[in-house]
Amino acid sequence: MSRKLRMGMIGGGQGAFIGAVHRIAAIMDGEIELVCGAFSSTPEKSKASGAALHLPPDRCYGHYEEMILAEKKLPEGIRMDFVAIVTPNHVHFGPAKLALENGFHVVLDKPATLNSAEAYELKKIIDTSGLLFCLTHTYTGYPMIKEARQIIKEGRLGKLRKVYVQYPQGWLSTFEEGTDYKQAQWRTDPSRSGIAGCMGDIGTHAFNLAEYVTGEKMTQLCAELQTFVPGRQLDDDGMVMMKFSNGLNGLLYASQINAGEENNVQISVYGEKGGLVWKQEDANSLLLKMLNQPQQILRFGQPYLSSFAKLGVRTPPGHPEGYLEAFANIYINFARTLRARLDGKKATEEWLDFPGIDDGIRGMQFIEHVVKSNASTEKWMPFTV
Amino acid sequence: MSRKLRMGMIGGGQGAFIGAVHRIAAIMDGEIELVCGAFSSTPEKSKASGAALHLPPDRCYGHYEEMILAEKKLPEGIRMDFVAIVTPNHVHFGPAKLALENGFHVVLDKPATLNSAEAYELKKIIDTSGLLFCLTHTYTGYPMIKEARQIIKEGRLGKLRKVYVQYPQGWLSTFEEGTDYKQAQWRTDPSRSGIAGCMGDIGTHAFNLAEYVTGEKMTQLCAELQTFVPGRQLDDDGMVMMKFSNGLNGLLYASQINAGEENNVQISVYGEKGGLVWKQEDANSLLLKMLNQPQQILRFGQPYLSSFAKLGVRTPPGHPEGYLEAFANIYINFARTLRARLDGKKATEEWLDFPGIDDGIRGMQFIEHVVKSNASTEKWMPFTV
Amino acid sequence: MSRKLRMGMIGGGQGAFIGAVHRIAAIMDGEIELVCGAFSSTPEKSKASGAALHLPPDRCYGHYEEMILAEKKLPEGIRMDFVAIVTPNHVHFGPAKLALENGFHVVLDKPATLNSAEAYELKKIIDTSGLLFCLTHTYTGYPMIKEARQIIKEGRLGKLRKVYVQYPQGWLSTFEEGTDYKQAQWRTDPSRSGIAGCMGDIGTHAFNLAEYVTGEKMTQLCAELQTFVPGRQLDDDGMVMMKFSNGLNGLLYASQINAGEENNVQISVYGEKGGLVWKQEDANSLLLKMLNQPQQILRFGQPYLSSFAKLGVRTPPGHPEGYLEAFANIYINFARTLRARLDGKKATEEWLDFPGIDDGIRGMQFIEHVVKSNASTEKWMPFTV
Amino acid sequence: MSRKLRMGMIGGGQGAFIGAVHRIAAIMDGEIELVCGAFSSTPEKSKASGAALHLPPDRCYGHYEEMILAEKKLPEGIRMDFVAIVTPNHVHFGPAKLALENGFHVVLDKPATLNSAEAYELKKIIDTSGLLFCLTHTYTGYPMIKEARQIIKEGRLGKLRKVYVQYPQGWLSTFEEGTDYKQAQWRTDPSRSGIAGCMGDIGTHAFNLAEYVTGEKMTQLCAELQTFVPGRQLDDDGMVMMKFSNGLNGLLYASQINAGEENNVQISVYGEKGGLVWKQEDANSLLLKMLNQPQQILRFGQPYLSSFAKLGVRTPPGHPEGYLEAFANIYINFARTLRARLDGKKATEEWLDFPGIDDGIRGMQFIEHVVKSNASTEKWMPFTV
Repeated sequence: MSRKLRMGMIGGGQGAFIGAVHRIAAIMDGEIELVCGAFSSTPEKSKASGAALHLPPDRCYGHYEEMILAEKKLPEGIRMDFVAIVTPNHVHFGPAKLALENGFHVVLDKPATLNSAEAYELKKIIDTSGLLFCLTHTYTGYPMIKEARQIIKEGRLGKLRKVYVQYPQGWLSTFEEGTDYKQAQWRTDPSRSGIAGCMGDIGTHAFNLAEYVTGEKMTQLCAELQTFVPGRQLDDDGMVMMKFSNGLNGLLYASQINAGEENNVQISVYGEKGGLVWKQEDANSLLLKMLNQPQQILRFGQPYLSSFAKLGVRTPPGHPEGYLEAFANIYINFARTLRARLDGKKATEEWLDFPGIDDGIRGMQFIEHVVKSNASTEKWMPFTV
Repeated sequence: MSRKLRMGMIGGGQGAFIGAVHRIAAIMDGEIELVCGAFSSTPEKSKASGAALHLPPDRCYGHYEEMILAEKKLPEGIRMDFVAIVTPNHVHFGPAKLALENGFHVVLDKPATLNSAEAYELKKIIDTSGLLFCLTHTYTGYPMIKEARQIIKEGRLGKLRKVYVQYPQGWLSTFEEGTDYKQAQWRTDPSRSGIAGCMGDIGTHAFNLAEYVTGEKMTQLCAELQTFVPGRQLDDDGMVMMKFSNGLNGLLYASQINAGEENNVQISVYGEKGGLVWKQEDANSLLLKMLNQPQQILRFGQPYLSSFAKLGVRTPPGHPEGYLEAFANIYINFARTLRARLDGKKATEEWLDFPGIDDGIRGMQFIEHVVKSNASTEKWMPFTV
Repeated sequence: MSRKLRMGMIGGGQGAFIGAVHRIAAIMDGEIELVCGAFSSTPEKSKASGAALHLPPDRCYGHYEEMILAEKKLPEGIRMDFVAIVTPNHVHFGPAKLALENGFHVVLDKPATLNSAEAYELKKIIDTSGLLFCLTHTYTGYPMIKEARQIIKEGRLGKLRKVYVQYPQGWLSTFEEGTDYKQAQWRTDPSRSGIAGCMGDIGTHAFNLAEYVTGEKMTQLCAELQTFVPGRQLDDDGMVMMKFSNGLNGLLYASQINAGEENNVQISVYGEKGGLVWKQEDANSLLLKMLNQPQQILRFGQPYLSSFAKLGVRTPPGHPEGYLEAFANIYINFARTLRARLDGKKATEEWLDFPGIDDGIRGMQFIEHVVKSNASTEKWMPFTV
Repeated sequence: MSRKLRMGMIGGGQGAFIGAVHRIAAIMDGEIELVCGAFSSTPEKSKASGAALHLPPDRCYGHYEEMILAEKKLPEGIRMDFVAIVTPNHVHFGPAKLALENGFHVVLDKPATLNSAEAYELKKIIDTSGLLFCLTHTYTGYPMIKEARQIIKEGRLGKLRKVYVQYPQGWLSTFEEGTDYKQAQWRTDPSRSGIAGCMGDIGTHAFNLAEYVTGEKMTQLCAELQTFVPGRQLDDDGMVMMKFSNGLNGLLYASQINAGEENNVQISVYGEKGGLVWKQEDANSLLLKMLNQPQQILRFGQPYLSSFAKLGVRTPPGHPEGYLEAFANIYINFARTLRARLDGKKATEEWLDFPGIDDGIRGMQFIEHVVKSNASTEKWMPFTV
C-alpha cells in the first residue's frame, strides 16, 4: 500500500511564522504527513506545540538530537523519512548534519547556514550521505517564475543584458526588536542571524531569484548596506550593483525599512529581443514584452506554458494561487523526487527543479561578499567561490 | 490527546477538479485528515483513487451508501466525523440525507441540490439531525470579502444603493461537451446539473456573494439567459437586474462564453457615503472609496482589519493567499465549530462565519427564479421563498 | 498662405466645464483658433469671458443670434468658419439651426438636442445645408477605442456575443443641485437637460461607445432608472439589458451616485474567438484576450496598430495621452475633413471617423427608449427609429 | 486689451519629436501663441515647417540669429515675447545666450547645455539679463509629482531614508542610428548630444525628479554606464547608487535598451513614517503607504490635494490627463509668471514652480559626475558643484 512521506520538524513552535508555513506547504498536497517534531528549546514547550498539532506526546521531543536518535530507532514503517529544519540560522547546520549522518533526508529553510564555511561543510556531508537535500527558496516555486526561467533558457529574449530585482519590506521601520516580537529579535541578532540582517533574510531570496531566472552567475558586485534604525545591530537595507556571466548586469535592492511596503518582490529581465517582468503582488501573471510587438500577459495554468510551470498548478486558470502554493511546489517536487528514489525510479527534470545546497552556498557567498563590498572603497569586487 | 477531525469524501475521483480542491482546502491547516472515500461509481475506480491518496483499501468504498453504513459501524476513534460531498449536483441530496440520518456532519459542494424542493427537504433533515452542515461557497472565504461585509455591516458606506457583481468565464466558448472533457459534460447536462447551466454553476456564486457582502436579500429580479453555443442544452450566459431589501438594487452577470476570461469574479457596492470594490484577480486587496477622500487599499493580514477578516489569514501581509486558502477558510471555520461542539464549547461568531443550508436554499431559489424570469415577458418577478 | 480654421463658441463662459475642454481640444493641434464667442447669456459676462480668453471685445457677443448674424457679415478672411456649441442641452438645437442656415459648419456637444424630434429636424437642416456637423462623443476619440472597433470590424473576435459597458460616477451622490454648483443644477433640471438626467448626460456616452466599438445597433432594451437622492428631479442612475443586431446582447449601466467613483468608463466585448477590454483609467492600453492564447496588451502609438488608431496619437508610446487628447482627436478629424473640403480634396476614411448627426439621433432615441422602458412592465421593448 | 504671450521657436522642424510637444504644450491653454520660428537649418526647410504651422513666411527664419535680430526690430505689439529652444543639445547655449542678450525670455529643452561650463555661463547671462528662464523637465509638471513633493515637504513621511527612481526605455535596443531615424542619430552622437547618451537624455530626468520630489541634493554617487549595442558611441544604459543630503540614499537607473519598455518612469520614496510611489503609466494617481495604515490612492483633481497639485489640472477627476498636460503645466506656470511680470504683479509660489537654470546646472553636473564615476575604480565619488 502506498503511503504518505513522513516528516519530522525541528523548530516551528508556537508563535513561529515560517514553521507554520512549512507545515501547510508540506501537507497541502496530501503526499507528506507530519509525524514528529522538536519544536522548541524545552520539552514542555515542544510537547505543547506538538499537542496543538495533534501529534502524540511520544513523538514530540525536547531537542533535535533526541529526536533524530530516537526516530532512528523506530521501525521503518513508522519513523520519519525526512526532517524539515525551520529554526533561526544559527541552528541550521547542527541539526542538518546530524540528520544526514543518521540517514534522514533534509529540507532546510534559507539561508543555508550561519556562514559559508558551514555551507561548504554541509555540502560535503550531503554528498557523502547520498541523501536528498532541499533548501526552501520559496520564490522559485512560483509557476510563473519557472516559466520566466524557461523562456530565457529557450533564448526567446536573446542574449541577456539587464536584470533588476527588488525585495522591499517595511516591517522593521521602527525598533521592533525592542518589543517582544520574536521574528524581529532573532533576525536582527548577529549571533542567531549571521553577519547580515536584511541582506541575509531577504537579499538572499532576491539574489537566488536573479540567478535562477536568468541562468547566469554573479561575477562581480558593488554593495552598500545601511542600518537606518538606531540601536539595530545589523543592516536593515542594502543595494547592490551586479555583474553576471555572459555580459549580463543589473541591480538588486532589499530593504526592511521601506515603510509601507509589505513584501513586494519583483524581477525584470531584458535581453536583445525583449523583456519580462514578474511581481509577486500579481504572482499568477508574467508580463512578456517583445520588441515592437504587443505585450503579453502569460497566465498560470494555461496550456501554452512549459512543463515546469504547469507542474506547479493545482487549479484552473483564474483561481489565484499564492505564496503557500509556491512554497508547496518546493515541497511537492522534493516529495516527488524522494518517492521516485524510494520506488527505485528516476526523477524527471521537472521534479528535480527545487533548490539545493549549491543554491545555499551561493547564498552564503552572496551574504559574505555583500558585507565585504560594503566595507570596501573599491567599486567592483569579484564574486569568488 | 487531541486529534485531527476525520473526513470521508463522496466523489472526487481521479480527473475531478473540485474534489482535489476540497482535499487541499480541508487538510491544509492540519486540523482535518482524509480517512475514507467513495470516490467513484465503481469499487475499482474508487480504490484506485483512494490508493493514489494513500488510503487503505478497506476505507475506499464503491458507493456512498456502503461507505456511510460501514463507517457507522467502525469504532468511535476510527470512523469518520463528517463527509464531504463533491459529486455533480444530482448526487448531492441523496448522500447528504443518508449521512445526516446516520449521524455524520456534512460539507457539501454548491449548489446545494438539484432543485429547491430537495433543498427545503434537506434543511428539515439537518434541523432534525441537529448536525453541522456547511456549503462551500468559496468566495465568502476570502478575508477581504469578509472585511467588505463587516465594513457594510458597520454602516461605513451609509445606506446601500447599488451592487454590481460579475462572474465571467470563457472556457465553454466552444462545444467542449462534445469532447471527452468531463467537467464540461456534466455541467451542461440537465439530468446532472439541474435546470440551469452557467447560472447554476457560477451564477449562484455571484448571487451568494452579493447577499453575503451587502447583508441584503433579493426581492425582485429580471433575468435573461442565453445559450450561445449550438447544441448546448443549458444556458451558458445570463444577466440579471436585481432589487434587494432596503432599497438596494443592481446587476449580476455570469457567463461561460466570455472568451478569453478565466474566472474574473468582481463585486462593487455603493452606499450614500462611499463604495467598495473587490476583484478576485487581486484578491488580497479591497478598494474602499469614500466620498471626497483618498481611495484606500485595505490589505489582507493588516492589523486594522476586522476579527472576521483576520481569522482567515495564514501569512504576513504581502505573501499572497489565493483561492485554495479562501476555500480552506470555509473548512477551517467548519472545523473550529465542529471541534467546539465535540469539546462542549461555544463557537465564536467568527468561527460560525461559513455558509449553510439557508444559503443553499437561497441559491436554489435563485436558479429557479432566474429560469422563470427568463421565460417571462414581465419585467420584474418577485423573489419568493 | 495656409491658415488656421476659425472657431466661434456658443456657451462656455467662466465657470463652465465643457467649454474649457472644447477650447483646449480645439486649439491643441494648432489647426484651429478661437476668434469669437457668445459665451454667456448677458453681453457683460460674455465680454468678460472673452477678455479672459484674449479675444477682442467686438468679437464677444451677447447672444448667439447676434454672433451668427454679425459674423456672417464679416469678410471671408476674418469671419469664423464654424461654431462650437457647448451650452446646456436646451440651447443646442436653436444655435445649431441658425448657424447652419447661415452657412456655418457646426461642432455640437452631446447629447444632440433636447429630444429626438429636434434631432431629426436638425438632421434635415444639416442635409439641406450640405455643411459639416460634428457631435463630440469624446470616448470614440481614444486611439485604443478606435483600435477596438477595427479589431472587431476585421472579424478577429469572430461573431460577437456579449458587450458590457459601464459609466459610473459618484459626484451626484448628494443633493449638489441644492448648492450653487452650476454643473449639477442644469444637469438635474428637466427644462434644461431633457427627460433624462444621468442617462442623458453619461448613459448616452456608454450607448454610443457600445455601438461604435461593436459596429452593431441596439434592437431591444429593458431599462430600469432610479433617482436615489431625495428631491432630485431626474434619474441619477440606470441599468439596461440590451439586444443588438446579429445576436449580440449585453449590459449597460451608468450612475452618478456610485459614491467614490470618478469617471470610470469601461467596455468589454466578447465574440466566438476572444474578447477585448478597455478602461478609461488605463486609456492607452487595450487588453485583447484570445481563446487559449496569452492575453495581449496593445499600446497606443505602437507600429502594429491600425491607421485609425495611429492617426490619433501625438507622442511616442509610453508618454500617456488622456481625455483632452481624445477630445482633440474629434476636433482634429473634423478639422482635417473641413480643410479637405476647403481645399477641394477628398477626406480619407480615417479623417471622417468622427461622430455626426446619426449618432446624435441614436443617442436621443436611446434616452427616450430608456425612459419609456423604465415606465413599462414589459420586459423587452423594441428600439425603433 | 489682454493678449496671448508670443512665442518664437528655434528648432522643431518637420520630423522633430520634441518641438511638436513644445508647441502643443505651449498653446493648449490659450495663453501663448506661436508667432515665429527658425525651425530648421535652411531657410527653405524652415519656411516649409512654418507654413505647415500656418505662420506667415516673413516670420519663418533660416537661422536663429536671423530670427532674434529681426524680431528685436519688430514693434512691441508684434514681436515675440520669448523663445522656445528645442534643438539638439549642442545648439542650446548659443541661441539661449543670444536671445537673452537681446531681451527675450527663454524656454529651453533639457538638458540645459552641452556641458556644465556652458550651463554656468548661461546662468550668469540669465542673472545679468534679469529675464525669465525655464527648463522643461517635464515630469515635474505632473500634478501628482507636485503633490508628492508637498507631502514630503510637509514632513508627512518623516525623515527620508530611501529613494528609488527608474527610467527604462527600449527603443535603442538595436542600432537605430544606422537607419535614417533622426531622433536616434543625434542622441547617440557625442558632438550633438554631449558626453553622455542615455544618462544625458533620460538619466537627467530621473535625477531631476529625485531631487525635486525629495527636496534633497545628491552628495555622492557610484555609477556604472554601459554601451550594449555594438557600434554605438555613447552609453545606452546606466545605474547609479546615490547619497543625498540629510541621510537619504537610493538608486537610479535609466536605460534605452530595456527591450519592450516604452517610457516607464517611476519613483518611490520612503521615510520613517511611510512611503509614496508614482508611476507615469498611472500618472494621475499617487500611492501613499503609511506604516500600519491602509494604503491611499491620491487622485489628481481631488479637493484634498495641495494648491501646487490643484493648479495643474484642467478636468474633473477621472478624466485622465497625461504627458502633454504635464508639459503644458511647465509652460503655463512660466506664462503665469511672465504675465505677472508684464502686469507688474508678483508671481505666486505655485506659479514659480517650474524648473530653471539651477536645475539645468545640477543636470549637467549629474552627467559629468556619472561619466567620471563610471571611469573610476573608487566606489563613492563626491558630487561637487
